[in-house]
Amino acid sequence: MGSHNPHPNRRVIVIGGGVIGLSIGWRLAKAGCAVSIYERDCAGRSASWAAAGMLAPLAEVHLEEKALLRLGSLSLEMYPEWTAALEADSGMSIGYRTEGTLIVGVDPDDARELEHLYESQQFLNLPCDWLTGAEAREIEPLLSPKITAAISSPNDHQVDNRLMVHALIAAYRNAGGDLHEIAPVEKIEIRGEKAYGVWVDGVLEDCDVIVLAAGCWSSEIEGLPRNAKPPLRPVKGQILSLQMKSGLNLQKVLRTTRATHPADVYLVPKHDGRLVVGATSEEMGFDTRLTAGGIFELLRGAWEAVPGVYDLPIVETWTGLRPGSRDNAPILGATAIENLVMATGHYRHGILLAPVTAREIASLVLTGKTSEIISPFQLSRFAH
Amino acid sequence: MGSHNPHPNRRVIVIGGGVIGLSIGWRLAKAGCAVSIYERDCAGRSASWAAAGMLAPLAEVHLEEKALLRLGSLSLEMYPEWTAALEADSGMSIGYRTEGTLIVGVDPDDARELEHLYESQQFLNLPCDWLTGAEAREIEPLLSPKITAAISSPNDHQVDNRLMVHALIAAYRNAGGDLHEIAPVEKIEIRGEKAYGVWVDGVLEDCDVIVLAAGCWSSEIEGLPRNAKPPLRPVKGQILSLQMKSGLNLQKVLRTTRATHPADVYLVPKHDGRLVVGATSEEMGFDTRLTAGGIFELLRGAWEAVPGVYDLPIVETWTGLRPGSRDNAPILGATAIENLVMATGHYRHGILLAPVTAREIASLVLTGKTSEIISPFQLSRFAH
Repeated sequence: MGSHNPHPNRRVIVIGGGVIGLSIGWRLAKAGCAVSIYERDCAGRSASWAAAGMLAPLAEVHLEEKALLRLGSLSLEMYPEWTAALEADSGMSIGYRTEGTLIVGVDPDDARELEHLYESQQFLNLPCDWLTGAEAREIEPLLSPKITAAISSPNDHQVDNRLMVHALIAAYRNAGGDLHEIAPVEKIEIRGEKAYGVWVDGVLEDCDVIVLAAGCWSSEIEGLPRNAKPPLRPVKGQILSLQMKSGLNLQKVLRTTRATHPADVYLVPKHDGRLVVGATSEEMGFDTRLTAGGIFELLRGAWEAVPGVYDLPIVETWTGLRPGSRDNAPILGATAIENLVMATGHYRHGILLAPVTAREIASLVLTGKTSEIISPFQLSRFAH
Repeated sequence: MGSHNPHPNRRVIVIGGGVIGLSIGWRLAKAGCAVSIYERDCAGRSASWAAAGMLAPLAEVHLEEKALLRLGSLSLEMYPEWTAALEADSGMSIGYRTEGTLIVGVDPDDARELEHLYESQQFLNLPCDWLTGAEAREIEPLLSPKITAAISSPNDHQVDNRLMVHALIAAYRNAGGDLHEIAPVEKIEIRGEKAYGVWVDGVLEDCDVIVLAAGCWSSEIEGLPRNAKPPLRPVKGQILSLQMKSGLNLQKVLRTTRATHPADVYLVPKHDGRLVVGATSEEMGFDTRLTAGGIFELLRGAWEAVPGVYDLPIVETWTGLRPGSRDNAPILGATAIENLVMATGHYRHGILLAPVTAREIASLVLTGKTSEIISPFQLSRFAH
């Protein structure tokens, strides 16, 4: 790649050490850039850590959001190769699993939701199979006898997002990247529509390019003029994990599609025996407290889909803050400020979109160009 | 009291630093004994810490268990004076609250359970009032509109058991007692039907009297002959606390009495704003893991009684092990082994029974005598 890059040794500062910042940093460091990541907390411990790791472009995306579906589908296609490169560079597994997903309706009322989803998948030429309840239970005998229909979605894969954080940190560092943790950026230094560096702990760190990848904290950083401030807010998710056991060991990802229920849930089995159950979606600002109702709905939803979870020990309960933009799509690419690039607002899809985001943003930093696929996601769409 | 005690300066070792061991130790140290408590973990951090602090002699006790009801009622009567003495000796509040308890039936099916409980309370001359759902909601407007009947039980009080642990440690130490934490007793030294001391960290600590107050670990300690081993097993309880807020601030203790529900719950408001919601009852050995079903039932039970809890933050989730004897009643008094006294197996009632247990066991140590009230609870009842 190096020979096509007019800027192989640019000095790049990435603000935010989540999977997006780390993925971009890894790619740029490999290409010969001098990369520094500044992370306000510990790398990958915010939304990246809280996620469940599902790779499902159509999950919670409306059929109308065609550009986002395309972006997600492309990133999903990149995953096998990307996983191989990341595992090779880090020497670690990221728990990429390809058993696929079953999407289930629990009550008879849920069938219409499921049919609608099935039509969407067919319209998008995504591989999928309609299953009766009995057929679904043949594939996954732990499913509730109440389940009357399901969709098998073999291409909806998953990774262990926490292993991916560990691997990205290692791969980034192995490529020569500098990672500064507990190092919040206080201000971006902008003079005359041009970015020069960032202020960290009272010191100006200068650079050639800044990549803003700070998730829901991206709009909190000082120094951004109004036309370069991404319209982001945190969307709280509550989530928990259970300890699977012999006889109760799911292989596929399960998702419910409920018509009347307060919240759909997903159950995502990990190689280490954890079953991740998520997630609520709440507009509560930066509040990260668990609530009675949130945990109740997750446990109820999981229990209604797979009654056997009742006896499983709870390993952990936690919350995360998804970075949601005004239209819930990511904010990617150049801005009105020279040398300031955005890669933020990935909402529910940060894990899925990491490969395509890293490829496109690295290309922008190195060559000044991106492919058509991210043009609908520029910050400028919010200007009018 | 000192002048009536033939043994004012006996050397006493108490095994177990929960509320029972600490209460006995406090009383004996005040009476002039040289008391050492050996605690395997941190004092008061096992069942005493896990409890909710309700003082309800009839809760989960059958009407047939008359001796236990008498013991509980007497201890409840002792509480105001005991609290005053403990708060004076420790300089701390223990959050004793006398707003009373409402026992509610949620479904129409629960009415019969409630009627049965009401008859029991009347039979025992415990003050209580039958309330319609509307009357109950007049007293506690946060109760669910589904609730059709309730019993007001004004004498069922509560303390903050965790504050009580802190106060007992302080009062015991102020009285000159020695508290050894993370100091498990390995063996009780018994020779010829007589106890001489305990082995701790490879050293024999001798004494005149040993009080075994180690809860569900009491039967795990080496050295006890078969006829002096208390038949105890741990009964796991899962419990959680929520953070109350303005507009959702309960005053009274609430308990549900459910006919068809997997588990009754109680909701116990504390002065610091916590609302303690408990508890499951599970025969799982020394397993202390939270489970999906356990937390689900607590949240469901609390939500069905008080729908407003749905939005409350979860402060903490935890489990405890109740020490249950073969008949679930405590084991109190002298044993076949000279100088070995038991004060264990308090099951669900350790907080309630602390005052009467301390009084009777201290009397036994100091004078060799106890009142009639504890004679039904001797270890010898399990001999035949």
